[in-house]
Amino acid sequence: NAADKAADYANYFCSYSYLYHQKQMLMDHVRMRAYHSAIMNNKHLFAGKTVLDCGTGSGVLSIWAAQAGAAKVYACEFTDMAIHARNLVEKNGLSDVIEVIQSSVEDLQLPCKVDIIVSEWMGYLLLRESMLDSVIRARNKWMKPGGSMFPSHATMYFSAISFEDDREGKINDYQHSMAEWSKFSGEMKNFYNIDVSALDGPFKKEQADYYIYSSLWTELRIEHVVGQPVIIKKMDLNTCSLADAECVNEVPFDITIPFPVTVSGYAGWFTVDFNGSVENPATKRVILSTGPEMGYTHWGQQVFYLHDAVDCSTDTKLHGTVSMTRQEKNKRLYNLNLTHQVDEEGEPLKVTYEIP
Amino acid sequence: NAADKAADYANYFCSYSYLYHQKQMLMDHVRMRAYHSAIMNNKHLFAGKTVLDCGTGSGVLSIWAAQAGAAKVYACEFTDMAIHARNLVEKNGLSDVIEVIQSSVEDLQLPCKVDIIVSEWMGYLLLRESMLDSVIRARNKWMKPGGSMFPSHATMYFSAISFEDDREGKINDYQHSMAEWSKFSGEMKNFYNIDVSALDGPFKKEQADYYIYSSLWTELRIEHVVGQPVIIKKMDLNTCSLADAECVNEVPFDITIPFPVTVSGYAGWFTVDFNGSVENPATKRVILSTGPEMGYTHWGQQVFYLHDAVDCSTDTKLHGTVSMTRQEKNKRLYNLNLTHQVDEEGEPLKVTYEIP
Ligand SMILES: Nc1ncnc2c1ncn2[C@@H]1O[C@H](CSCC[C@H](N)C(=O)O)[C@@H](O)[C@H]1O
Ligand SMILES: Nc1ncnc2c1ncn2[C@@H]1O[C@H](CSCC[C@H](N)C(=O)O)[C@@H](O)[C@H]1O
Repeated sequence: NAADKAADYANYFCSYSYLYHQKQMLMDHVRMRAYHSAIMNNKHLFAGKTVLDCGTGSGVLSIWAAQAGAAKVYACEFTDMAIHARNLVEKNGLSDVIEVIQSSVEDLQLPCKVDIIVSEWMGYLLLRESMLDSVIRARNKWMKPGGSMFPSHATMYFSAISFEDDREGKINDYQHSMAEWSKFSGEMKNFYNIDVSALDGPFKKEQADYYIYSSLWTELRIEHVVGQPVIIKKMDLNTCSLADAECVNEVPFDITIPFPVTVSGYAGWFTVDFNGSVENPATKRVILSTGPEMGYTHWGQQVFYLHDAVDCSTDTKLHGTVSMTRQEKNKRLYNLNLTHQVDEEGEPLKVTYEIP
Repeated sequence: NAADKAADYANYFCSYSYLYHQKQMLMDHVRMRAYHSAIMNNKHLFAGKTVLDCGTGSGVLSIWAAQAGAAKVYACEFTDMAIHARNLVEKNGLSDVIEVIQSSVEDLQLPCKVDIIVSEWMGYLLLRESMLDSVIRARNKWMKPGGSMFPSHATMYFSAISFEDDREGKINDYQHSMAEWSKFSGEMKNFYNIDVSALDGPFKKEQADYYIYSSLWTELRIEHVVGQPVIIKKMDLNTCSLADAECVNEVPFDITIPFPVTVSGYAGWFTVDFNGSVENPATKRVILSTGPEMGYTHWGQQVFYLHDAVDCSTDTKLHGTVSMTRQEKNKRLYNLNLTHQVDEEGEPLKVTYEIP
């Protein structure tokens, strides 16, 4: 409805209408190289074919598809970035192949079905932004039988990490904020005759939610990862349903710590594969990984710190479950729900993190 | 309509639902002392009276009104902050006097008219956020004849300033961003076979709008102000109309520079007065000033830098006009439109700044 759309524009689409924001994605060379080599090394999937680019942004994927020999590319973009994409396409001499259509993917009208859908829809921790919904809807409506999604598969990883400097920094920020509240509370009483103690608890909760129970964008290095990362979701984008894209159902994990180390919390990231479809497979298979082994991507990793770190010895076991659910107030955002237990000791900890 | 309301919530109200944000206002002691002393030194305006607090936030102004002897205070707040306000009121033992009503001011229903309306509705450069509209609507609907607005008057100031360090910092940021674009443009061609030159102009405009043609929150010191500040708008809040609150009509200015100095641009700020009404005047008149002579307020001053500074000598004259208009895309936000000419030389410069 109209109200949802207006809030969605304010919260979500608006940032994509800035070249500055598109440029940040275009300067993410891990991302760029993966899409570029996946297209250029699998020209047979594009040559003479009809392509749909869902959320073309600056138009980059459409331009590569055209350069790979596509007969026709429909480049769909909701925001005014479509105007810039159209100029870029023209300047690169590809106006006869690429048609930029300013529309939501949902309202898109095409004269025919397509052979392949390219899209860069991935958000933090893969699902954030919920743009995959739009891509699946486009697939269901516009993909020819046997056509392929590009990327074709997605995998989500979850891992224990040790990064005490960073965790302690956050805990310090939180404690600093609470110390400032104490001072503030005294001033409110002394200067203005107001007792704000009724707000002590709510403020503490608000700040804990902000500093601790929100995930953080972090650029992890491989040495921060402790034990084996766990796969928490796999999706075949050629066949998955809207329900598959909605959440991560509760997944149990069991991580064995290989050496004595302080575990600070957990982290998540994803990879996508460009395999084509069964009928139209890629010959050179490319993987885009946003894991800590790859260096910088604009996705980084999302980190979930524990309030209290866990000192582990060799063979300590971290048991738990993890799930991801959409936020009530904004369906493009997620919470991560964690239960966690060290060996078999005590009650499992149960916490929910907001992925901001 | 519903769509406008949803976007408004996402863009505007949301931040006020955080205690952290309310606390920033409560820690602005210039603000707090002005309201506190205006109320406590004019208890006759409150004692035994019925008060409406438009946008009560944490409830602070209502608590003071009750402490000053109000018979009844209606504390109206749209966001969930109303829940915290209610707790605060209770903890301070004022639940029998203060009724917290979670509602928009526009939809508010009261059993009777009120003697006085207290509100802290002022945004950056006074008008930003356009909350005054809501307060005027409440006044027109709920104020008894002869009742008073608290504050009762508002004045906007505009001044030439010299602050080259800050201006040059911004110009450097802008130039740095454009240098990075050059590098980016080369990489896009070399690595990915895309000519992005079609976007050179639009990117430059986007960055100039961001770095130069947007006003900046600044904490000016008195020595940055050059010549006499000009009053660009005065409002009697007891009588002003919605049309008065909408914009600043084009005002000419004529500033004589008193000594040789480099003018970096202009700045704006405001004051409000707590005079009561003609029928119910304040006995002690308090002024809340957000000008550079007062030290920190959370409003600071809004600064509008020129792309090219002006070297002035004694008696150089800066002529021009200034107006403020609401943005098409978001009626709570303003543009400032400036024309400016040094002595009688050349064509006047004409620029529009966004107040973000
Ligand atoms: N439902 C939808 N309809 C149309 N465009 C959408 C959309 N959801 C997201 N988008 C657009 O999809 C883009 C995703 S960012 C990726 C941009 C570009 N393909 C690149 O790889 O660089 C954004 O520009 C966003 O505005
Ligand atoms: N139309 C409207 N209806 C109800 N509340 C509104 C409103 N417009 C703004 N507000 C609320 O008004 C408050 C303004 S901030 C001032 C808060 C408090 N009076 C203080 O002085 O500290 C915010 O909490 C905001 O949510």
